[in-house]
Amino acid sequence: MSHKRVLIIGGGAIGLAIGWRLARAGCSVALFDRGRVGCSASWASAGMLSPLSEAQFEEEDLLHLGLKAMEVYPDFVGELEAETGCCVGYRRDGVLLVGITQDDLEYLKFRYRYQRELGLPVTYLSGAEARSKEPHLSAQVSAAVWCPGDHQVDNRRLVMALKRGVEAAGGEIFEDAAVDELLIDGMRVIGVRVGEKVHKGDTVVLASGCWSRLMPGLPDSAKPPVRPVRGQVARLGTTREFALNTIVWYSRVATSTVAYLVPKGDGTLVLGATSEEMGFDEDVTAGGMFELLRAAWEVVPGIYDLRVVESMAGLRPGSRDDAPILGKTPVEGLIMATGHYRKGILLTPLTALTIAEVILEGRTPEIIRPFGIDRFGL
Amino acid sequence: MSHKRVLIIGGGAIGLAIGWRLARAGCSVALFDRGRVGCSASWASAGMLSPLSEAQFEEEDLLHLGLKAMEVYPDFVGELEAETGCCVGYRRDGVLLVGITQDDLEYLKFRYRYQRELGLPVTYLSGAEARSKEPHLSAQVSAAVWCPGDHQVDNRRLVMALKRGVEAAGGEIFEDAAVDELLIDGMRVIGVRVGEKVHKGDTVVLASGCWSRLMPGLPDSAKPPVRPVRGQVARLGTTREFALNTIVWYSRVATSTVAYLVPKGDGTLVLGATSEEMGFDEDVTAGGMFELLRAAWEVVPGIYDLRVVESMAGLRPGSRDDAPILGKTPVEGLIMATGHYRKGILLTPLTALTIAEVILEGRTPEIIRPFGIDRFGL
Repeated sequence: MSHKRVLIIGGGAIGLAIGWRLARAGCSVALFDRGRVGCSASWASAGMLSPLSEAQFEEEDLLHLGLKAMEVYPDFVGELEAETGCCVGYRRDGVLLVGITQDDLEYLKFRYRYQRELGLPVTYLSGAEARSKEPHLSAQVSAAVWCPGDHQVDNRRLVMALKRGVEAAGGEIFEDAAVDELLIDGMRVIGVRVGEKVHKGDTVVLASGCWSRLMPGLPDSAKPPVRPVRGQVARLGTTREFALNTIVWYSRVATSTVAYLVPKGDGTLVLGATSEEMGFDEDVTAGGMFELLRAAWEVVPGIYDLRVVESMAGLRPGSRDDAPILGKTPVEGLIMATGHYRKGILLTPLTALTIAEVILEGRTPEIIRPFGIDRFGL
Repeated sequence: MSHKRVLIIGGGAIGLAIGWRLARAGCSVALFDRGRVGCSASWASAGMLSPLSEAQFEEEDLLHLGLKAMEVYPDFVGELEAETGCCVGYRRDGVLLVGITQDDLEYLKFRYRYQRELGLPVTYLSGAEARSKEPHLSAQVSAAVWCPGDHQVDNRRLVMALKRGVEAAGGEIFEDAAVDELLIDGMRVIGVRVGEKVHKGDTVVLASGCWSRLMPGLPDSAKPPVRPVRGQVARLGTTREFALNTIVWYSRVATSTVAYLVPKGDGTLVLGATSEEMGFDEDVTAGGMFELLRAAWEVVPGIYDLRVVESMAGLRPGSRDDAPILGKTPVEGLIMATGHYRKGILLTPLTALTIAEVILEGRTPEIIRPFGIDRFGL
């Protein structure tokens, strides 16, 4: 059992999962969130676990990380559910990437060829074949790539389970507790200050997503290059007659809109998401909703009459190269777990396991070595 | 001073305005609402007072009623504001009916010719002329009809002022008080029952909008042929740089979508409205929002980045001929004030004044004679 005192800044999925692993390993854990835990980007997410559908050129390290993350997911979820009694809605739905126009199809084929080069288990389908998998697809859908290895989790249930897990393992959670200063002595972290109160610790984990860079007290060499990338989402209420079998993902080339429809166990259909560089603005906008609804309706016309249950925006922490920033920093005892961008929910278990290893064992696992803050040469 | 005991069923703008006029005339007034007063169709309205822009073929009696309603509006508002100290946001903005496509223009010209035949003071404008009135119009807008005589009120402030007016004049308002039965003895109304409690009265006004037809105890000959016509609306938050000078109204012929943008004094921009026959379903839907946002964005592209502050749906009470149902019924003492459809806020003052005259003086003013329930031959 470790007896370290670990302070975690940020109570999204990443911070909570790290807190859970460390608390159950015997660390004394205190987690601080500026608002309520799990209610920022983690809450706005659609919970897709989709390294196959999202495989991008020039990001093979990141793909490798995502595939590894998929491997550890089932056990992580199993332990969490067993310890907390919560179900987190892990499902192996698969993703259908769909296209309508000639441009969409060129883009689909380009994606498909790249996926095949990487040896990923995906299949190119005609429109009719795609509709046989998902009968709610529009007759306009002319082709699709089927990614059966992509899964999903209920991100909201996940963060609530993680919160319970932290508390059950004896961790302390402070909500509405913005950290006002990171306390560093020489180049060694010694704690954090919240208002007037100083919390001392051996280790501080910076997991505050797009806000990580703004933490007062961070030296320049440990300022993670992350920025907010707004994602607007809507949640629709489905009916007994209307339920998707698969996740549907449409990259609408004509307007560079991405819309995915992710059916959840509680009957809601999550419709995400814009990607907008708007600073820290968390507004839901007329244009954002319009683009999402148009693209979703074009590929799944049956959403037309569904109730709009909710709309919200979250701020993804995008790093300079879109990959996460994980592990040790030039400040002794200060550990990064930020910059997860579009993959925060996917990478939650793997980040928690590897960051716990860094803290408990003092060594950096091979898989996260390409993702250190040192790669930016700050 | 009258000493009648008047019971009003329904606390929308119509019921409240009648209550206010009768209470200040000395009647003992009790008003019953199934929920909170003013929070159904009156709350969802955009508050346009637009008999000119909405003039329809074959509805000349209704146009005449609307124009008369415009005449009495300023004095009515003046009295209400003076008595309650509330400002109800009455504004003389004018409406620009705009078009983009060839089909839109054919429809605009058709509307314009009809308006001119009726002698209404409207002007046909080129796209450039329209943009000089409202610089936020899209360059795609190719023509417009300018209706400077159409005005607006803040419908939400109006109902809140009317509520205060009723109470200040000594009327009683019962909220969360659905009337369970209309009590009739022979063919004379004697009161209403709410739960176990009986309220006696000489006169009962049925002003419960699309729910009017469902009132238990109504004989067939007094069942107003009204049905719910759903209207979905959104409210957007404007910025200092973005404020419309005029109301903009777009009838998008290709999809039969109507979208109007109504700037309010508090900086919100009301965007209405769908017209859907969906029974008593008050859902906001993906398709409804999509159609509204698309049409509004096409004519005023600057809405794209505005925040979506709110979305809701209201149920307009549409009658068989789209005109209101006003005045006496075959049941002595039972007075109708329902079926106002798209014109509830416009007709509120005139309905209140004329219905008060029916009740206080026993005679039916000429202007509302075409709108009796007897016209349906029930």
